Amino acid sequence: MRGFAARTSVEAALQWLDVVTPLPGNESIPIAAAAGRILIDPLHSPRDVPTFRRAMMDGFAVHAQDTLGATPYHPLVLQVVGAARPGVPYTGQVARGNAVEIMTGSPLPDDTDAVLPAEMTDGIQATTVRVIDSVPQGKNVGTPGEDLRHGSVVLPAHRRLRPQDVGVLSSLGQAHVTVTTRPRVRLVITGNELLPAGSEPYGAMIADANGPMLRALVERDGGLVTDDSLSIIPDDPAAIHEALTAPADLVLVSGGSSVGREDHAPLVLQQCGELAIHGIAMRPSSPTGIGRIGTRLVFLLPGNPVSCLCAYDFFAGRAIRRLGGRSADWPYRQCRLPLKHKLVSVIGRCDYARVTLDNDQVVPLAISGASILSSTTRADGFVIVPELSEGHPAGAFVDVYLYD
Amino acid sequence: MRGFAARTSVEAALQWLDVVTPLPGNESIPIAAAAGRILIDPLHSPRDVPTFRRAMMDGFAVHAQDTLGATPYHPLVLQVVGAARPGVPYTGQVARGNAVEIMTGSPLPDDTDAVLPAEMTDGIQATTVRVIDSVPQGKNVGTPGEDLRHGSVVLPAHRRLRPQDVGVLSSLGQAHVTVTTRPRVRLVITGNELLPAGSEPYGAMIADANGPMLRALVERDGGLVTDDSLSIIPDDPAAIHEALTAPADLVLVSGGSSVGREDHAPLVLQQCGELAIHGIAMRPSSPTGIGRIGTRLVFLLPGNPVSCLCAYDFFAGRAIRRLGGRSADWPYRQCRLPLKHKLVSVIGRCDYARVTLDNDQVVPLAISGASILSSTTRADGFVIVPELSEGHPAGAFVDVYLYD
Repeated sequence: MRGFAARTSVEAALQWLDVVTPLPGNESIPIAAAAGRILIDPLHSPRDVPTFRRAMMDGFAVHAQDTLGATPYHPLVLQVVGAARPGVPYTGQVARGNAVEIMTGSPLPDDTDAVLPAEMTDGIQATTVRVIDSVPQGKNVGTPGEDLRHGSVVLPAHRRLRPQDVGVLSSLGQAHVTVTTRPRVRLVITGNELLPAGSEPYGAMIADANGPMLRALVERDGGLVTDDSLSIIPDDPAAIHEALTAPADLVLVSGGSSVGREDHAPLVLQQCGELAIHGIAMRPSSPTGIGRIGTRLVFLLPGNPVSCLCAYDFFAGRAIRRLGGRSADWPYRQCRLPLKHKLVSVIGRCDYARVTLDNDQVVPLAISGASILSSTTRADGFVIVPELSEGHPAGAFVDVYLYD
Repeated sequence: MRGFAARTSVEAALQWLDVVTPLPGNESIPIAAAAGRILIDPLHSPRDVPTFRRAMMDGFAVHAQDTLGATPYHPLVLQVVGAARPGVPYTGQVARGNAVEIMTGSPLPDDTDAVLPAEMTDGIQATTVRVIDSVPQGKNVGTPGEDLRHGSVVLPAHRRLRPQDVGVLSSLGQAHVTVTTRPRVRLVITGNELLPAGSEPYGAMIADANGPMLRALVERDGGLVTDDSLSIIPDDPAAIHEALTAPADLVLVSGGSSVGREDHAPLVLQQCGELAIHGIAMRPSSPTGIGRIGTRLVFLLPGNPVSCLCAYDFFAGRAIRRLGGRSADWPYRQCRLPLKHKLVSVIGRCDYARVTLDNDQVVPLAISGASILSSTTRADGFVIVPELSEGHPAGAFVDVYLYD
């Protein structure tokens, strides 16, 4: 119970973590579920899109030469021999002097070479149309491959798929797409004082706050929480060992992460795998452990909910994002604003300071205990004060990560 | 086929829309599914959290007065009469001169009034502990309600629930929370040329791109796409009427939105409800219609995929977000950067200009046809040029909405 002999710096912990985090796996999924998922490789077009010449306006498919010289004062008359609609092409021949009524998006009849917009005519009279302006060859005609060319790169590697990307995949005729697999994350919530999430507290028992918070964080970062993550695990080495070794890509243990007599997780991890880092020079979250069992990363997060959130965000969230092929960057919007009051820190320790915004000024929260979860719900975000800084005076500009 | 007689301004269309968009409904859901959902009312704490006095450090629960005068040179000795662990309180009495070993988070025994940290002792010898420093009353003791006080506002109205908010709800003993209902959105994808999303195109038939794109957009904005949204609806007034009147909170029609002979949706909407706006002074998406059937909003989105995306984002997405209790704001990150080349627009029309970023400069995309969906996948975002602007010269700073 005497504390940690030495603490690892945040930077060294991240360095270790980034080296050992496995590369993402991949899987093929239906495009209806693909928005927000991550490509591994660049995606090439398997065909030209569109595959055919198409009308870009409503009007008449014509031989452009037949419109030469047409004006409102000298209209030319063409024979309308048929119509083309989207999905319903005109398949006959179109001789010189003839035209085909056509709608935007329809295939252009083979012999024609331009679309005369409806506005450049007086409209159809019986089977003829009066042309009052001329169009050059190719005008208002979309060419095969003008949207996407066969073999070209449609989407770059590592792309997080946007709604319109899914639309493009569909128009390429791709019903499925290969994306990174979502890391399966096992939550191991320990603590004999804990009741299942949302239970009414009584006596010395409290409701688990970390389980539902971690579930939401993991899902935000693209992970999938495993089905066996719901129950509270007793503070007991055998139970913790069983939970650490259940099938998962990554394990998050909440509680019992420190060096006290009831802190079993570090010893269990040491016995069945590697406890690479234990004790980190930061506040809160200093009693954090990081290690692995085979290639499976294991994070020992402090039970205090603010420490749990902070340790998750610094280390576990980053690993989950990278394991799923996402960016390692913090998943928060950032802004740079001046401090309203000074922000004090201690050299040799990285600080995670909750702040509020007040008229575009940054106000450090006074209540900063690691057990006060409401400090993170009252806060608008946080400022990181690195290990080698004593903090910042009032007026200094700081980078704020916004929680919302 | 002669175009619109008059076009509504974007501003007037938004004004109409904001007035008629219904207020959000609400429902009670389990907290495990609550992250990202929206509160309607402020949430008050039904109890103090914590409910009991608790130790904030590992050490010994003591009568503070018993430690007065203790130093390493003049240690004082206390009798250790028991232990308190989280969830396992010490329930006996603690007479003066006695102490209880205690772990962080454990309930403080009734008679004691401070926690002496383990570092201020020489540890336990048999049943005694040597105290080498003094603590004042209340030191290292968390008081009931210090995290959340009974009756206080825990979360403000309209809050989009964060992972830590869900943790707080759980620690309040709330298994459920009342949030806004997700709007049920019916997609009505029309077009006789369309094959189901992801089909291999052949002949004059193309695969539907708008359906999967709209589904992803609706989900991004908090809506739920109804199960009957999958099939392609024929360009036929009866089929369109049936789809418009199927159960939903909001309907998105893709295709057939203009004034051509095959554009049935505007007439059908006019007959069974109200077509309030038809034709908007913007590019792309000018053949957009907006109306309603009873309180159900109906959006007629152009079939051209870029127009469809743009009309969705300007109007339908905003209505879905507001109907679900979210902010009306664009759901894109914003940045302000200078133009590398000039950006030309026309007075009297609002432009949605796709752009890429090149070394922190904004480059308008040359290919801007409404049918070129890849212009929105190649783009990094878009710039809106309002109706009364002719555009901007090179070097001018513009607001860019980023797609990612």
